[in-house]
Amino acid sequence: MRQIVFVLFAVVALAGVVASTAPTSGHADGEAAPIFVTKIPPGYRDWRLISVAHEEGNLNDLRAILGNDVAIKAYREGTLPFPDGTIIARLAWSYVPSEENNKVFGRPQSFVPGPPPAWYLQFMVKDSKKYAATGGWGYAQFDKDGKPADEAPLKTCFPCHEAIKARDFIFTRYAP
Amino acid sequence: MRQIVFVLFAVVALAGVVASTAPTSGHADGEAAPIFVTKIPPGYRDWRLISVAHEEGNLNDLRAILGNDVAIKAYREGTLPFPDGTIIARLAWSYVPSEENNKVFGRPQSFVPGPPPAWYLQFMVKDSKKYAATGGWGYAQFDKDGKPADEAPLKTCFPCHEAIKARDFIFTRYAP
Repeated sequence: MRQIVFVLFAVVALAGVVASTAPTSGHADGEAAPIFVTKIPPGYRDWRLISVAHEEGNLNDLRAILGNDVAIKAYREGTLPFPDGTIIARLAWSYVPSEENNKVFGRPQSFVPGPPPAWYLQFMVKDSKKYAATGGWGYAQFDKDGKPADEAPLKTCFPCHEAIKARDFIFTRYAP
Repeated sequence: MRQIVFVLFAVVALAGVVASTAPTSGHADGEAAPIFVTKIPPGYRDWRLISVAHEEGNLNDLRAILGNDVAIKAYREGTLPFPDGTIIARLAWSYVPSEENNKVFGRPQSFVPGPPPAWYLQFMVKDSKKYAATGGWGYAQFDKDGKPADEAPLKTCFPCHEAIKARDFIFTRYAP
């Protein structure tokens, strides 16, 4: 089986773009780092699958974690830290029973994606210089209309991801 | 939102290759249809995501449903029936709590893929002539070692999928 690392980012419901308003050490000219990843990475819905998860509690969602080509290659080869250019996408949908499935199977057992929650789309973008203040990762969150999250909730991302520093701040492991 | 159809095939735990040993109507020469889809479609793990699901009960798995290019195009355009050449892949992993995630979040909430169950990999392959006896779909199941399932359990696929004939026998809807 291939190597295997992880994300489960966005387990903090309100996580999103973590950012620092201070200039990062990677900017010799003192230019301020961007506060947000404000653009949805194009084509993310065509990216390959890293893993899936179900979060209970206040989140109560079903999620898929996708990666761009750089991410998938790094996961499969067990490369740590992830190279610059890695982008990991986390899609979440509300966790709902499938009445139509359950009717066919004759018992309540099937849970499927429902309407998107406020934390529908999240991204982690690796740029070790630009996002040096947050472990080399920029964080982003968008709702179903593509609206980026405010800065305040996004600042909650990194403190949680810090716990998983040994895997370059990425919770999700690759599901073979 | 895009159109949206579905699979949740393999909700019958032992489902897999449904097949008929009788010649299908599409074979004018009376040649017998293949009993099984015996080969794992190459490259399926690189296919794009259709949706995710959690099945409770005896299955108790987390699953991802992927589609080849023909499948994804049909889903996104709402094409029914699915064209010949469509292949839908269903990957399932046992549903396990993530101790490492839960430790970080301070509460039990995170469920992730564990070891693959016996019904790890399933495929539906659309060939309206070859699989005419089972709604135009061939069914397949493989375990983690690539071993195809026996014929008997695979015969349970089609009877269940028949209930969803209006969507060309496919349970899973596209998750946007």
